[in-house]
Amino acid sequence: MNTQEIAEKLCEHCRNHTETQGLEDLYADNAVSVEPMAMEGMSPISEGKGAIHAKHEWWNENFEVHGAELEGPFINGNKFSIVFEIDATDKNSGQRWKSKEVALYEVEEGKIARESFFMLPMA
Amino acid sequence: MNTQEIAEKLCEHCRNHTETQGLEDLYADNAVSVEPMAMEGMSPISEGKGAIHAKHEWWNENFEVHGAELEGPFINGNKFSIVFEIDATDKNSGQRWKSKEVALYEVEEGKIARESFFMLPMA
Repeated sequence: MNTQEIAEKLCEHCRNHTETQGLEDLYADNAVSVEPMAMEGMSPISEGKGAIHAKHEWWNENFEVHGAELEGPFINGNKFSIVFEIDATDKNSGQRWKSKEVALYEVEEGKIARESFFMLPMA
Repeated sequence: MNTQEIAEKLCEHCRNHTETQGLEDLYADNAVSVEPMAMEGMSPISEGKGAIHAKHEWWNENFEVHGAELEGPFINGNKFSIVFEIDATDKNSGQRWKSKEVALYEVEEGKIARESFFMLPMA
């Protein structure tokens, strides 16, 4: 698959809530995921598909998602971007927040090799 | 300036239509600008501040901008992103279009060293 096909497949998985399958099918085994900051004692960098799966599980255990919208994919060469808007409640604190973030994906040899998430600065 | 300060300054210049000053102040002399595709016989890659200025001039000569909105900056480490929504008319063809694009900026040694623009695939 080329970058556009991978990008469109990933958007489809996100829209259908089949992200786990998307990670399995579209990511390189040694893919790296980079958050803008460390969350609750975790590293901001997850290395390898297993670590990214674990991050997804942590997210699903700790957050209740009320809504998630996405725009994209936006493409440039072997990179693409998706803009996410998320409305979720932190199950531990009870705090609900809406946030928008930009995700950047880098494709190498037909697989997603790196994803990074960009956030608005804290007020 | 750190990445967040540079990112906020660039957004301010875009909102105030002082992009030329923003390019002068915030970009490295050898900064590179990467479009998702070549426009009208031009290269998709502009190398150096002079070439980026020339691209801005080409844009200003060839397009009438009715509206431009931006969201951001979204930040991750030494990179940041801005989401632009542009409503413009191509003066040559008379065609008016609205488009959204994601811009990615990479900061090195306190200057923007690289910008890339991500577009939705053509329908």
